[in-house]
Amino acid sequence: MSTLTGIVGFRGYSGAELIRLLSGHPHASPILMEHRADAGDRPVPVGHTGPRRIASTPAAAREAGVECVFLATPHEVSIELAPEFLAAGIRVIDLSGAFRLRTPDIYNRWYKEPAIPADLLAEAVYGLPEFYRAEIRGARFVSNPGCYPTAANLALRPLVEAGVLDLEAGIVCDAKSGVSGAGRKPSLKTHFCEVTGNFSAYSILQHRHVPEVLQNSGLEESQFSFTAQLIPVHRGILETIYVRLNQDADLCAIYADAYADEPFIRRYAPGQVPDLQAVNGTNFCDLGVVQNQRRAVIVAAEDNLVKGAAGQAVQNMNLMFGWPETDGLL
Amino acid sequence: MSTLTGIVGFRGYSGAELIRLLSGHPHASPILMEHRADAGDRPVPVGHTGPRRIASTPAAAREAGVECVFLATPHEVSIELAPEFLAAGIRVIDLSGAFRLRTPDIYNRWYKEPAIPADLLAEAVYGLPEFYRAEIRGARFVSNPGCYPTAANLALRPLVEAGVLDLEAGIVCDAKSGVSGAGRKPSLKTHFCEVTGNFSAYSILQHRHVPEVLQNSGLEESQFSFTAQLIPVHRGILETIYVRLNQDADLCAIYADAYADEPFIRRYAPGQVPDLQAVNGTNFCDLGVVQNQRRAVIVAAEDNLVKGAAGQAVQNMNLMFGWPETDGLL
Amino acid sequence: MSTLTGIVGFRGYSGAELIRLLSGHPHASPILMEHRADAGDRPVPVGHTGPRRIASTPAAAREAGVECVFLATPHEVSIELAPEFLAAGIRVIDLSGAFRLRTPDIYNRWYKEPAIPADLLAEAVYGLPEFYRAEIRGARFVSNPGCYPTAANLALRPLVEAGVLDLEAGIVCDAKSGVSGAGRKPSLKTHFCEVTGNFSAYSILQHRHVPEVLQNSGLEESQFSFTAQLIPVHRGILETIYVRLNQDADLCAIYADAYADEPFIRRYAPGQVPDLQAVNGTNFCDLGVVQNQRRAVIVAAEDNLVKGAAGQAVQNMNLMFGWPETDGLL
Amino acid sequence: MSTLTGIVGFRGYSGAELIRLLSGHPHASPILMEHRADAGDRPVPVGHTGPRRIASTPAAAREAGVECVFLATPHEVSIELAPEFLAAGIRVIDLSGAFRLRTPDIYNRWYKEPAIPADLLAEAVYGLPEFYRAEIRGARFVSNPGCYPTAANLALRPLVEAGVLDLEAGIVCDAKSGVSGAGRKPSLKTHFCEVTGNFSAYSILQHRHVPEVLQNSGLEESQFSFTAQLIPVHRGILETIYVRLNQDADLCAIYADAYADEPFIRRYAPGQVPDLQAVNGTNFCDLGVVQNQRRAVIVAAEDNLVKGAAGQAVQNMNLMFGWPETDGLL
Repeated sequence: MSTLTGIVGFRGYSGAELIRLLSGHPHASPILMEHRADAGDRPVPVGHTGPRRIASTPAAAREAGVECVFLATPHEVSIELAPEFLAAGIRVIDLSGAFRLRTPDIYNRWYKEPAIPADLLAEAVYGLPEFYRAEIRGARFVSNPGCYPTAANLALRPLVEAGVLDLEAGIVCDAKSGVSGAGRKPSLKTHFCEVTGNFSAYSILQHRHVPEVLQNSGLEESQFSFTAQLIPVHRGILETIYVRLNQDADLCAIYADAYADEPFIRRYAPGQVPDLQAVNGTNFCDLGVVQNQRRAVIVAAEDNLVKGAAGQAVQNMNLMFGWPETDGLL
Repeated sequence: MSTLTGIVGFRGYSGAELIRLLSGHPHASPILMEHRADAGDRPVPVGHTGPRRIASTPAAAREAGVECVFLATPHEVSIELAPEFLAAGIRVIDLSGAFRLRTPDIYNRWYKEPAIPADLLAEAVYGLPEFYRAEIRGARFVSNPGCYPTAANLALRPLVEAGVLDLEAGIVCDAKSGVSGAGRKPSLKTHFCEVTGNFSAYSILQHRHVPEVLQNSGLEESQFSFTAQLIPVHRGILETIYVRLNQDADLCAIYADAYADEPFIRRYAPGQVPDLQAVNGTNFCDLGVVQNQRRAVIVAAEDNLVKGAAGQAVQNMNLMFGWPETDGLL
Repeated sequence: MSTLTGIVGFRGYSGAELIRLLSGHPHASPILMEHRADAGDRPVPVGHTGPRRIASTPAAAREAGVECVFLATPHEVSIELAPEFLAAGIRVIDLSGAFRLRTPDIYNRWYKEPAIPADLLAEAVYGLPEFYRAEIRGARFVSNPGCYPTAANLALRPLVEAGVLDLEAGIVCDAKSGVSGAGRKPSLKTHFCEVTGNFSAYSILQHRHVPEVLQNSGLEESQFSFTAQLIPVHRGILETIYVRLNQDADLCAIYADAYADEPFIRRYAPGQVPDLQAVNGTNFCDLGVVQNQRRAVIVAAEDNLVKGAAGQAVQNMNLMFGWPETDGLL
Repeated sequence: MSTLTGIVGFRGYSGAELIRLLSGHPHASPILMEHRADAGDRPVPVGHTGPRRIASTPAAAREAGVECVFLATPHEVSIELAPEFLAAGIRVIDLSGAFRLRTPDIYNRWYKEPAIPADLLAEAVYGLPEFYRAEIRGARFVSNPGCYPTAANLALRPLVEAGVLDLEAGIVCDAKSGVSGAGRKPSLKTHFCEVTGNFSAYSILQHRHVPEVLQNSGLEESQFSFTAQLIPVHRGILETIYVRLNQDADLCAIYADAYADEPFIRRYAPGQVPDLQAVNGTNFCDLGVVQNQRRAVIVAAEDNLVKGAAGQAVQNMNLMFGWPETDGLL
């Protein structure tokens, strides 16, 4: 029998991706949870009504038999809803930034408000399976990583742990994202005419995904320069990461060791790198390296809506429920 | 000395195009008139502040010496502002749909409200120079045509007048527009992710530009089937028009006669048609014909922001002020 | 055990789509057949080599145990290869235009050369399951329909059969396609800079898909005006079809009757129409109708690479092998 | 009287931009010089034949009265043609990479062949007016800079000269370009379907524009890490440049000093940066800085076809002929 999984925020881009992935999942099936009405429904073919819809309340969830809720919502909504569903004995996977930063001080600096409930923060497991698989298994509350930090941490943490980086020279992460990363709510920033034929940088040296990278990679702020940029595409993240080495080292070999058994990390031959088309629609994070003696450029690519959001959330669900980790994702 | 021309709605796409065209005009120069503050200003390079800004009131206009005002505003704003500037002795070119339909009944059917002031409607001259040049010269109030009707009327009126169309078979105008035609105000319809990789039809058989075509071409509603569609491009309109003939006739020859002396109508050899790149950034409307005996397909292309809006408005200004019609436009 | 299905032309866009669909098929699996080397391979992640590759010869196919070959090749290559595989007892699904036109005279007019082998043409079954399901079942040689004709015939044939169209007024099919329909071979027509920000019409009133529509819809050439146009998107076809009726009739009801049991035809409520995002990546053809008394506009949308090519080919394979028709496609 | 300027390679994207700019120039007018026929002519409106066409030979040029030739050609064609026109007493502005590198050894490493004529190389003046204005004035042979090096050198040279960069930490230049930078010749790399929805890096750490940056900025190869990337847009270059400082310094102030009188360098307030839409269609190079103590990110933007090619070539022509430097460019 299929495990019923609720989606709050199903009209957004991550929400739609969750519907797609859960509709093809062997053990789970989606149910849509209305939180706030918006005018964003698309015309629906006759007789193709899609998953059932209920209210986004613990009572409605329990009555329908929902065992897990995905919050594809702004962080303030997640802070409101997560404790309610958890209190009702329903597992929660939160895709917002609310519970990603372990220290309230750091959270307050970047997200400002509302205040984060300390007990809930303590319980949240950071859902990056490649590094926190054991903690995710059996967790009842997982905080799904940000799209930029997923690729950055997957690229950087093995190199930091190997101790081969020249940290004083600093690391540069020049990140580019498709527009769906900015959400479906209309704004001038996401207006077609402002984006098409354009390319723009934002939140230079002050993006709130930076502390999430630092926390999980072991880097310090002064060592890590990060720029976010908007590509005129629907989806996909590509990060071009520049490092200098403090010793002779083969970065491809370090990745081969670190990720030998990882189903969703793909590596390339030395000198070859992925592009967005290699990963879009998949849960892969692809890593390629171009190295010139002690300088290296790493290209990390992922689909911001899959490995950077909904796919990783399903990967976490698989671990939480004890199902094979790749179910519904390959 | 340069004639000062005010622009209300200068942050919109037609407004920006007016700034561009008037900045290079030999007899006119732009001044920006703040109507409602929005957050849409772009970062400005140091020392490049652009044209002077004043309030969008008759008093401010008179004090600054403004002789002509362009209203690149929604129709309800134009209905509010046009009489004020006219009363102050300032000429007005309105780019909205407010004053295009000659009959209040028809206006009420398509625009609903606010009510259109009848005296002002009577004074407004429809600013399609190729057909109403004499009336525009010397006018103090011009209603600038809609983007779709400009191309449709330029393509159809000479054929209607030549009497060669099989009106019973009907005329099909399959129109496609870039997204800037929908304005700069953010909406789900203009969200980058909803438009890119997409193509969609809207207002099928019920677009409010239809009565504007009928009024100026001599066609009746049942004879004219019109669909508007959104192309994932910033700018440009292409209309594919299907007609059947009631006699042997050479449509290219009819256009050659009708438009021999028109500076902004370009024609193509039989069998050749324009695309958007042929006209974008220009004030041309290009017409090409593919004919197979008594069936013909006409492709009309224009830049919706130039010949379909700001460029035609400048062309009208040139006529109103007695300057050479192509000044600032070639 | 999985049925091995060869793909010739696997580097093209339809070929890549066949790999994707067959890789997820419950009864079939793909094998790649090298016909002509090109430089178009993309970088491949370490250890992700994809399906096995063999030569595109009957001998290699038989040795590998291939039971069915998809020809995603130009028509001249299909004419060369189809007889070879058939003679070797291997079923063939040809995605080219070679065997779609039943009369050699008509073929010669549109495809010119090479000459089509008459016996093979006689055996080819036109693979539009919604109309030729019985013939496709058990066929060993299927000619997969063109992308434009698939949507046009699905939209028009039920209306022609119902006898409600005013054929004298004529039918207009204004068709738009994504660029992948032009194939992967580089040309100026498919250069990014010639396509982006552009929209262009081609083969007006003389596209070689026209006779394919006439042959399967029952229309005559003088009744059917067709224009093909290039949208700046990767994939998707949208056809805006204009008809006039010779009697009062409800087109949505006619479609509801004709397609009640069809798994891949989706219909919309009266007045609603599909866009490209509704169908892209799916094997659906979506039909929507806007009707105003005896005038109607039909919008038909499909993914040119799926229902318009690879998906329909898999649908045909399912029928030929006696598998459930939707296997691997929903 | 207008100075006649020939364009070889006028069908390419830089060539088309030269036509556009020279057609509006107060002292010069274009003439098109046929070098090799290609099929790339677009349909031309009746009576709009554009500039006159002659052969690309010194004889034809002299007969027509051409005083200056722009070579918008591949480097091997420029090496063939430049000496011929110079020998005929005609000034040459070469837009290829042939004559940009001062040392034949370095040229041979990056361009391989054909061999560069040493005497001609000695005469070529590097046409970056902001740094070599005096040499360009009066030159008869100018080598127009590459698109990437123009922005990189304008951003970096003042900082190198000010001595504020921590060169040991290294400089990262993450560069992104529109597709027109790859030329108009069709290739898989520029196929619409390979570019749209995609973003890809190429020539990482080994682009042949690198030595051109080093030569003109004073940096050494090990200090400068450069990646080129393809944005799915027609035109525009944006370079995100990461530097660390060896002392407290205000980069905006350094730019303000260096570029106070430069007509084509625009600067932004601290913390503000340009995007592509700020510069496209213009000859500006825009520079913005985000600084956090001794770390800084510089965003440099230009139109690769204008300041990165045709516009800068016209700027050089203005200097060579003693005309006001901004003529035809503002």
